[in-house]
Amino acid sequence: MSKTAVTGSLLSLEIDRAAVGTLCRQLLEQLRAAIDSGRLPAGSRLPSTRVVADELGVSRNTVIQAFDALSAEGYLESRVGAGTFVADQRRLAPSSVAAGPQPAAAGRAYPFRSLSRRGRSLVASSTDEFAERPRSFMPDVPDLREFPIKTWLRLLGETSGRLTGEILADTSNAGYEPLRRALAQHLSASRGMCCDYRQVIITTGSQQSLDLTCRMLVDPGDPVWLEEPGYLGARSVIRANGGVVCPVPVDDEGICVEGAEVTHPVPSLIYVSPARQYPLGMTLSVPRREALLRYARASGAWVIEDDYDYEFRYQGHSPQAVHGMDKDSRTIHIGTFSKILLPSFRLGYMVVPPDLSEAFGKARAIVDRHASLIEQMVLSEFMHRGLLVSHIRRMRGLYRARQLHLIAGLQSLLGQALPLAGTDTGMHLTLPLAPEAGDVALTRRAAQLGITLRPLTPYYATRQRRQGLLLGFAAFNNSELDLGLQKLAPMKADLARLLQRQP
Amino acid sequence: MSKTAVTGSLLSLEIDRAAVGTLCRQLLEQLRAAIDSGRLPAGSRLPSTRVVADELGVSRNTVIQAFDALSAEGYLESRVGAGTFVADQRRLAPSSVAAGPQPAAAGRAYPFRSLSRRGRSLVASSTDEFAERPRSFMPDVPDLREFPIKTWLRLLGETSGRLTGEILADTSNAGYEPLRRALAQHLSASRGMCCDYRQVIITTGSQQSLDLTCRMLVDPGDPVWLEEPGYLGARSVIRANGGVVCPVPVDDEGICVEGAEVTHPVPSLIYVSPARQYPLGMTLSVPRREALLRYARASGAWVIEDDYDYEFRYQGHSPQAVHGMDKDSRTIHIGTFSKILLPSFRLGYMVVPPDLSEAFGKARAIVDRHASLIEQMVLSEFMHRGLLVSHIRRMRGLYRARQLHLIAGLQSLLGQALPLAGTDTGMHLTLPLAPEAGDVALTRRAAQLGITLRPLTPYYATRQRRQGLLLGFAAFNNSELDLGLQKLAPMKADLARLLQRQP
Repeated sequence: MSKTAVTGSLLSLEIDRAAVGTLCRQLLEQLRAAIDSGRLPAGSRLPSTRVVADELGVSRNTVIQAFDALSAEGYLESRVGAGTFVADQRRLAPSSVAAGPQPAAAGRAYPFRSLSRRGRSLVASSTDEFAERPRSFMPDVPDLREFPIKTWLRLLGETSGRLTGEILADTSNAGYEPLRRALAQHLSASRGMCCDYRQVIITTGSQQSLDLTCRMLVDPGDPVWLEEPGYLGARSVIRANGGVVCPVPVDDEGICVEGAEVTHPVPSLIYVSPARQYPLGMTLSVPRREALLRYARASGAWVIEDDYDYEFRYQGHSPQAVHGMDKDSRTIHIGTFSKILLPSFRLGYMVVPPDLSEAFGKARAIVDRHASLIEQMVLSEFMHRGLLVSHIRRMRGLYRARQLHLIAGLQSLLGQALPLAGTDTGMHLTLPLAPEAGDVALTRRAAQLGITLRPLTPYYATRQRRQGLLLGFAAFNNSELDLGLQKLAPMKADLARLLQRQP
Repeated sequence: MSKTAVTGSLLSLEIDRAAVGTLCRQLLEQLRAAIDSGRLPAGSRLPSTRVVADELGVSRNTVIQAFDALSAEGYLESRVGAGTFVADQRRLAPSSVAAGPQPAAAGRAYPFRSLSRRGRSLVASSTDEFAERPRSFMPDVPDLREFPIKTWLRLLGETSGRLTGEILADTSNAGYEPLRRALAQHLSASRGMCCDYRQVIITTGSQQSLDLTCRMLVDPGDPVWLEEPGYLGARSVIRANGGVVCPVPVDDEGICVEGAEVTHPVPSLIYVSPARQYPLGMTLSVPRREALLRYARASGAWVIEDDYDYEFRYQGHSPQAVHGMDKDSRTIHIGTFSKILLPSFRLGYMVVPPDLSEAFGKARAIVDRHASLIEQMVLSEFMHRGLLVSHIRRMRGLYRARQLHLIAGLQSLLGQALPLAGTDTGMHLTLPLAPEAGDVALTRRAAQLGITLRPLTPYYATRQRRQGLLLGFAAFNNSELDLGLQKLAPMKADLARLLQRQP
């Protein structure tokens, strides 16, 4: 052990074993206090998780989770092959605006301490994912050209005539009542949910729904289970709100709750994407849905059901939403219009348990009052006239055709036996690669060729990562997909070699 | 002292006097822990703030602030004439949806404990203010009929043609760049701010700007100074984020920072409404602006400048924005389009110090990604064509005429010597009443007559309250104002008697 290493006993960490379920939080808070107070200065190397676990007599998983949370907050950093170190927090300070016209501010930089602890956590949890520019194969984007903008503008014109009275009369923070009613009806018909419209809360999208749910149901230090690999937006929000991400493995049937029951701390919240697991694409099986709900009931955990991409199912039928199966009302169901209409609209919804609807409505008011009323009114009209359902049906047919076109193109490029999974749903394909593939490097090479491939490994929170590439097809017509495949041709040999053939 | 009273020593509270500036936080956390653990059961009466202060040897102000924060979180409740008690937290549980179609949920109610501590704080901080329905004299609402909806729709039609490319290309969380540039230019010209567009962050309105700022700059337990009386939306957000509201008195020149320096704990944040103090209406004088910035520099506090109603100045000229005077870049400037366009648009902005712009942009991404792009694009067009400035000018003339009409009407109803202050700005009048007036009861009586008057006392956080009534005039034309005054006639004698004549 090097000279700068600090052992658990030197840190005078003390764990109160009587306080069940909070070992991780105790460890986290003591380490944070030691760093805040300067007892553990920047650059100090921490002992390995195994050493700390042994000294304190706790499971190694507990220590890993505490280290992970502190890394997310910017307190710790890992250096490959060297270990875990106390981060130099000044390096996290936001850089100054280069040549601003405010001379007094030039050349100054605040100590990062000026942000609150919560603020630093928000910043450190942010990913660059949101800033990417679109090109061939970019996933998670609908085809904006197919959006019925003319119909929308016509409805907007008609609706705007009703603005005066209704805008004044409807200031409900939970959303415009006719839209909430339309959604409750739509979700009953399409997702087997059978909810009252008062449970529906209109948000500005999945991101706000997730953030609001974490603020309402998770306290700093609480364990939150997240699919591994899982949705980066969810991971960011959980960490930003001080939750400790506990990665739970998925297999062909989705999240393996029964295994995690034994190894993981009891969570206050479990995040799942049952309709189409993000990013791998499988659907959570019915027995697994039942196991999830059984565990939620037994443990008192809340469940977030992110109903991501349920609209784009090409084969078979979707199981009933977890929310609809949940007799114990532990499920918060989250949906968005970003993928079926336009990402820029910023409209989404959540369906909360009846007992929580009033509380969530009040919290919604504090966070940002309510969503844009005029867009809610137009969407409501759009739904009441049956246009949403027919738009979804049309896009489903279109995307299915594009998916088949891309699969055929990839087969002729890379060979017949493509190991694709999860092709019965979704807006992207996931191409599994061999363990030595180096997916991040491959996507960098693709970027130089003018293509956006997304690597699979960053969706993992642990080091047990599978290699792969995500290829989006929804936003591109057949000739654009062909053009993308042509650009991909220089990588053909390498990709074919690195494909993970099915066993 | 009654049998259920608990003294400081029985509570085994211990204050570490070496930890300067955190006495309030220590007290708050110990009391919360005592209630959480059941050591202080529901219904227990707490000793008076004076007794606790004496026993612990801290200032009474410190104890009042801790009690105040715990009341906001729903831990304590005051009963008039009886004292402060530990609240029965189950009573705070959100009520079940009455007759929902989900039989499994009927008759069940979760213990409120199922919400996170933060979640309870969010709910307990919410006010009913947001749900009010509009009638004569309702303040804070623009005249929606005057909104240039035809122009807006025309721009929307023109802009929608550019949607495809631009929507894909611009996903900046901080906002649509041309709009940020237009705002930076507008604020330079109208507010003397001289900011770079990269400091401008587009939000969904003041509420989100306030919430984001508190999350970024305030940790739970931190003192936050707020004008007394002050904006309820700010008070809710501060409390919802765990901040401890420290009310700072205002006089004719605005917030009295120099007095508070002596009596109040050092804040992490100071909230002010300098252009037009909410709700009293005075403008923060230049010497007071300088004192505020001097103190912020000396103490390291951040300042929120809520630039509320600067647009509607009828006499004299506005002083330069605090943000523009701030050589030390400690000011977060907040503005909204709710009052000049439509509340339902949900578009606002904040101008942050250069060093914080990157951090705030990242945090914005986590909270809800970005504001509706199409509305940002249309607003940008609206500004670039000079339509915003001409719209503000037109509304300023209209509202000024309505204000004069209402003043004349009130004078003929209540007599010539109306003690009105703050009439050089704003969208409402504040009518001061005598200490015995009972403004809340008066507004209830007005409600039965079909009029919305707003009482002044709820804007105070302490018991040092002044009585008064707020009368909004912006949303009503002259004949509507006359109709409102006619409805007010039955209260004429009482109001005239209760008017607080100027000394």
